[in-house]
Amino acid sequence: MSKKKKKKNTKIKPRVPRGFRDLFAGEIIPRDKMLQRIRRVYELHGFEPLETSALEYVDVLGKFLPESDEPDGGIFALQDDDEQWISMRYDLTAPLSRVVSQYRLDLPNPFRRYQIGPVWRQEKPGPGRFRQFYQCDFDTVGSKSPAADAEVCSVMCKTLETLGLEKGDYIIRVNNRKILTGVLDAIGLEEDSTAEGAKHRLTILRAVDKLDRLGEDGVEELLGKGRLDKSGDYTDGAGLPAEAADIVMQFIRAGNHDRKQVCKRLRALVGESQTGLEGVEELEVIDELLTSMGYESDRVIFDPSVVRGLAYYTGPVFEAELTFEVLDKKGNKRSFGSVAGGGRYDGLVKRFTGQEVPATGASIGIDRLIAALQAKEMMDTKPPLGPIVVTVMDKKRLGDYQKMVAKFRDAGMPAELFLGNGGFPKQMKYADARHSPVAIIAGSDEFDNDQVSIKDLRLGAELSEEITDREEWIKNQPAQVTVPMDEMVSETQKILDRYTK
Amino acid sequence: MSKKKKKKNTKIKPRVPRGFRDLFAGEIIPRDKMLQRIRRVYELHGFEPLETSALEYVDVLGKFLPESDEPDGGIFALQDDDEQWISMRYDLTAPLSRVVSQYRLDLPNPFRRYQIGPVWRQEKPGPGRFRQFYQCDFDTVGSKSPAADAEVCSVMCKTLETLGLEKGDYIIRVNNRKILTGVLDAIGLEEDSTAEGAKHRLTILRAVDKLDRLGEDGVEELLGKGRLDKSGDYTDGAGLPAEAADIVMQFIRAGNHDRKQVCKRLRALVGESQTGLEGVEELEVIDELLTSMGYESDRVIFDPSVVRGLAYYTGPVFEAELTFEVLDKKGNKRSFGSVAGGGRYDGLVKRFTGQEVPATGASIGIDRLIAALQAKEMMDTKPPLGPIVVTVMDKKRLGDYQKMVAKFRDAGMPAELFLGNGGFPKQMKYADARHSPVAIIAGSDEFDNDQVSIKDLRLGAELSEEITDREEWIKNQPAQVTVPMDEMVSETQKILDRYTK
Repeated sequence: MSKKKKKKNTKIKPRVPRGFRDLFAGEIIPRDKMLQRIRRVYELHGFEPLETSALEYVDVLGKFLPESDEPDGGIFALQDDDEQWISMRYDLTAPLSRVVSQYRLDLPNPFRRYQIGPVWRQEKPGPGRFRQFYQCDFDTVGSKSPAADAEVCSVMCKTLETLGLEKGDYIIRVNNRKILTGVLDAIGLEEDSTAEGAKHRLTILRAVDKLDRLGEDGVEELLGKGRLDKSGDYTDGAGLPAEAADIVMQFIRAGNHDRKQVCKRLRALVGESQTGLEGVEELEVIDELLTSMGYESDRVIFDPSVVRGLAYYTGPVFEAELTFEVLDKKGNKRSFGSVAGGGRYDGLVKRFTGQEVPATGASIGIDRLIAALQAKEMMDTKPPLGPIVVTVMDKKRLGDYQKMVAKFRDAGMPAELFLGNGGFPKQMKYADARHSPVAIIAGSDEFDNDQVSIKDLRLGAELSEEITDREEWIKNQPAQVTVPMDEMVSETQKILDRYTK
Repeated sequence: MSKKKKKKNTKIKPRVPRGFRDLFAGEIIPRDKMLQRIRRVYELHGFEPLETSALEYVDVLGKFLPESDEPDGGIFALQDDDEQWISMRYDLTAPLSRVVSQYRLDLPNPFRRYQIGPVWRQEKPGPGRFRQFYQCDFDTVGSKSPAADAEVCSVMCKTLETLGLEKGDYIIRVNNRKILTGVLDAIGLEEDSTAEGAKHRLTILRAVDKLDRLGEDGVEELLGKGRLDKSGDYTDGAGLPAEAADIVMQFIRAGNHDRKQVCKRLRALVGESQTGLEGVEELEVIDELLTSMGYESDRVIFDPSVVRGLAYYTGPVFEAELTFEVLDKKGNKRSFGSVAGGGRYDGLVKRFTGQEVPATGASIGIDRLIAALQAKEMMDTKPPLGPIVVTVMDKKRLGDYQKMVAKFRDAGMPAELFLGNGGFPKQMKYADARHSPVAIIAGSDEFDNDQVSIKDLRLGAELSEEITDREEWIKNQPAQVTVPMDEMVSETQKILDRYTK
């Protein structure tokens, strides 16, 4: 009992769950401007908005542990009051495949939608790694045309350029999953359809995926006998004979800035494999379409080392990477890496309907993009301008002050009455904390003469840094003007115009 | 094993969890326009945006069961991987009080924020009752001034009127919690500070809150001995003597359209109670300020029967109600009731800091508002216009078609290449499903003459309803024009201009 009582009197610590954060005006306003631009690009391309709910059934997300009724890790799952497992969505693709299956008779075919919204992942949080973050997805479901894949690349380019990035600031790397399949067919590996074959191929895919981290030598070891890392851990290799491993390595190295040449090399490597040839032909069509749309290899290249995780992709895959570096505060170089990615996934809808439905699209993550654009000074980092603050000099005149506030609002200018407690210095401190451009002052002097004083707070701050003679300053108040009451709005507008210049 | 195997092969049913829903373009676009307008009103009033995360610690939400470590019902709660209980937010006020406590030294004082976003409640779903819905909150934390309360009323009026409602379509009812406290003091009830007193007063508050449902007679019974309802259930009463109950009934009935007169009556009823007098005086200031801002009793009235649930309010409470009725499809009258509400809550921050912080604000719920505005035909219910569809007449010319699409996009006109599979009829069916205004057609005839055909799809639909001679129609194609390729964009623009008129 005493324990319970103690608990009741304990104050609660105000804190946000691990890996989560609060966003304030200074972060929300520039982010929303950015999202608005992204949305506009998606809409120009004919994608329409979709908003699925935050919670989904765990089986819909494909997130039950294999052969079990327990949800997999990595998601925020709970049991609903009817005992069914539900989870917060961890991406926007699984909900899309659910929507397409659920409403398929009512949706246009192809179905082209975008969705911008938060997703939640129960992963280890870290600096810059949050458990709730925004994704901006666009997808075309119901088209097997490589034109849809080429469009994904062009939308990624268009979006990044709309945000201010230029050719050379980024590169889109494209690969096709079918080609590695073809290469592995060509070297005589067992088919994907047997458990043995699938496992073997996955090992090779994993090895290729480590190119960034381990370099070519590391991948070569993993394709062969295996690899001993610095910590002494040994990873078993795929056990390919040297000749076969060499072909895979040629495949990995086949990327360069001449898309046609890449296709030629890949064609040679896939030999007679039908799947591999299909993959190369798709890339050839994508190349042609991109060229006709004006997207040359300074923006989109073919790079067979791109794997895009081990997930559900079945054809072309895409990755957008920022290529520039900036110096951080300590003078160290900093790069930003991948900011968007996607690919073709023809199997996701099949889980529901049993029928394969071709689909392709990509997802743009905004957190790294925001960091990169801020580092390039292409995003506003200034605190947003606060409202005009009408100060309270005489508490009996609240009604008059409110009328003044209303005049500003009617003119479309954000304004408010100071609602706190405190004299003039405290009111100025408040206006300062809000980054208000202007404070309005009316005491009995002003009211008697039907006048009002307007204080330009930015000019005031600038001047006060320069002044040497404080008394002189106070006497002259260079940043303050007194005008007739009916000129209050127009005179204030003049000051605001100077701010926005 | 066989059971598991069977499970693996079972198709997953595409469905959304109970009480949740998907929103498509036709719902999202008008809703977002509406939210944009609401946001603009809040910003004009000096509120700045805040975005808290979807998940909060359960103790922060104040949602542990009394004297227990188990979360209360009504919320979607789960244990994080560190065993701590977290929950999806069920409103935007608890997160605000957390934010104010957590960052209090860094925030402007008063802190004026708005937050628009979904909240989640694990309640019984029903028609029009969802478990995820949007709230639009604005609050001023750190001001005890009745001017802040008056402003809440004016923001509610402004918001509803910005959305198209007029005086007479809605009414804001205002009460003050302190007044009932004063009335109960005046009739000699035990103080709130004793367990006995608090319980007794809560019973009376609950009785008053049932006025809508039970009428005056029902409330009177609940204030006295108790009440037997039609189903035979008996509810114990508050046991007030007839004289005391009569005073409470006078209090309930004191509302009318003359705010000053209401204040006078209430002043008489609270007698010598200090708290009651405070409450009346606050209403008097609110009345004055509202009058000076032009909000007369055709928009804001004082109504002592407004209780606003039994929650955390400590002073003025507000409720916005739509007053008009519409006829539904069956010809039955339908009203919409409360669409917004709020009040003053001076105790919420205290849970964290131990110090009382004055706060006031309101929350606008958009679902009923949308239903009401749609019923009044003040909200667009037409499906949103789809993109211009460039049809594919010759698959070898995909590059040329993409260039045409690019011309539209460059001119700021949403457009897309038909990416599906199928001939002309299927492409027209697609354009129709997307509510596209225009289809672009270019076959070898057109390309040979450097021309393009533009099909006005709405005009086509209108004309095809009128036609009697189908062959004549097909020959003349009155809704289709063929123009030089370099006039494609400008000619299409002319058709689009007709659409937006």
